[in-house]
Amino acid sequence: EKQRELQKITAELESAKKELIKLEARQEAQGSKNRAIEALKRSGIRGIHGALGELIKVVDEKYLTAVDVALGSHFDNLVVEDDKVAEEAIKFLKRNKLGRLTFLPLNKIKPRKAPSVGGGIPAIELVEYNPRYENAVSFALGDTLVVEDMNEARRIGIGKARMVTLGGELLERSGAIVGGHYRPRQRISIGNIEEVRAKVQALETQKE
Amino acid sequence: EKQRELQKITAELESAKKELIKLEARQEAQGSKNRAIEALKRSGIRGIHGALGELIKVVDEKYLTAVDVALGSHFDNLVVEDDKVAEEAIKFLKRNKLGRLTFLPLNKIKPRKAPSVGGGIPAIELVEYNPRYENAVSFALGDTLVVEDMNEARRIGIGKARMVTLGGELLERSGAIVGGHYRPRQRISIGNIEEVRAKVQALETQKE
Repeated sequence: EKQRELQKITAELESAKKELIKLEARQEAQGSKNRAIEALKRSGIRGIHGALGELIKVVDEKYLTAVDVALGSHFDNLVVEDDKVAEEAIKFLKRNKLGRLTFLPLNKIKPRKAPSVGGGIPAIELVEYNPRYENAVSFALGDTLVVEDMNEARRIGIGKARMVTLGGELLERSGAIVGGHYRPRQRISIGNIEEVRAKVQALETQKE
Repeated sequence: EKQRELQKITAELESAKKELIKLEARQEAQGSKNRAIEALKRSGIRGIHGALGELIKVVDEKYLTAVDVALGSHFDNLVVEDDKVAEEAIKFLKRNKLGRLTFLPLNKIKPRKAPSVGGGIPAIELVEYNPRYENAVSFALGDTLVVEDMNEARRIGIGKARMVTLGGELLERSGAIVGGHYRPRQRISIGNIEEVRAKVQALETQKE
């Protein structure tokens, strides 16, 4: 009876340990940008504001997918006060082998604007942000129109403006097209890791 | 003696299994684009050419870092014959829940050109590619100049052109700056996984 209980706990522990290895490896692969950003925030370098995606709030949930897709890799761009801060931060990353980031210096980053094309909603009207970050937000979203679907995009004219559909297709003015199976960004994975870590510790205590 | 040998093999097997879990999780996180591209190539959809990064060859190793950095996320963009192929491919990805890709339709993608600024080497002169992909390569690299270092970039004038240094700093015309600790793309990780997988199998056989 006690033997069976011990076998059960051992099996559960083994399974939880494997899960933890997997989650840590995935976090390592996906989270290197997050780690670099957190390290820079703790570095003492002044003028580091935050990842663009965390400085923006989407007002209406209906547009969450469209704005997320429109942000694309700019979500993880790090907004900094000026280009001197960016250079100092790059040196820090190199010294500490912390990977690479894209920096948006507020004194240098050029805002963008969508052309008037008689349709779509400017993406920048669908988000809230501190006005001090206007240049950076406008750089990432200012040229983007949110449209209902591909049909509306075609009516407006593909190539006339950068357009994103509610379903998450993105049509760049360059002619590039982004699409496929949309998966929201996994921001909750860190919570999962902590839970599994706690479970491993509890099972190890129970086994003794 | 035999008991000690068995313990040794068991410990090695445990370690190799953990390594395999980690590598598979990392590959899963990093390789979803590769998996989507491979699936599309096998899908039977005509007009799918390949990831931009695999259609380009860097002639002189001295420029490998600079070109890699200049390509950025365009490395994994999928070159396709036209926008109809891109739409068909997007439907395929959605149906099979295979994630998202950026498509470069050869009939729509707009080539880019670097301004004359009296310095730097056009990145597009440093690569070889099949001329049929000219539009796509020019879209990704056509506006980029390769410079020696940040000093040369400043001499030319930051913001005057898109510039990448031999050491891997990237200065976008938009004012964005990309930099940090450069790590070449891990194209060999799949080889590593197969090796560890083979090791696990060998150790399991040995243990019996």
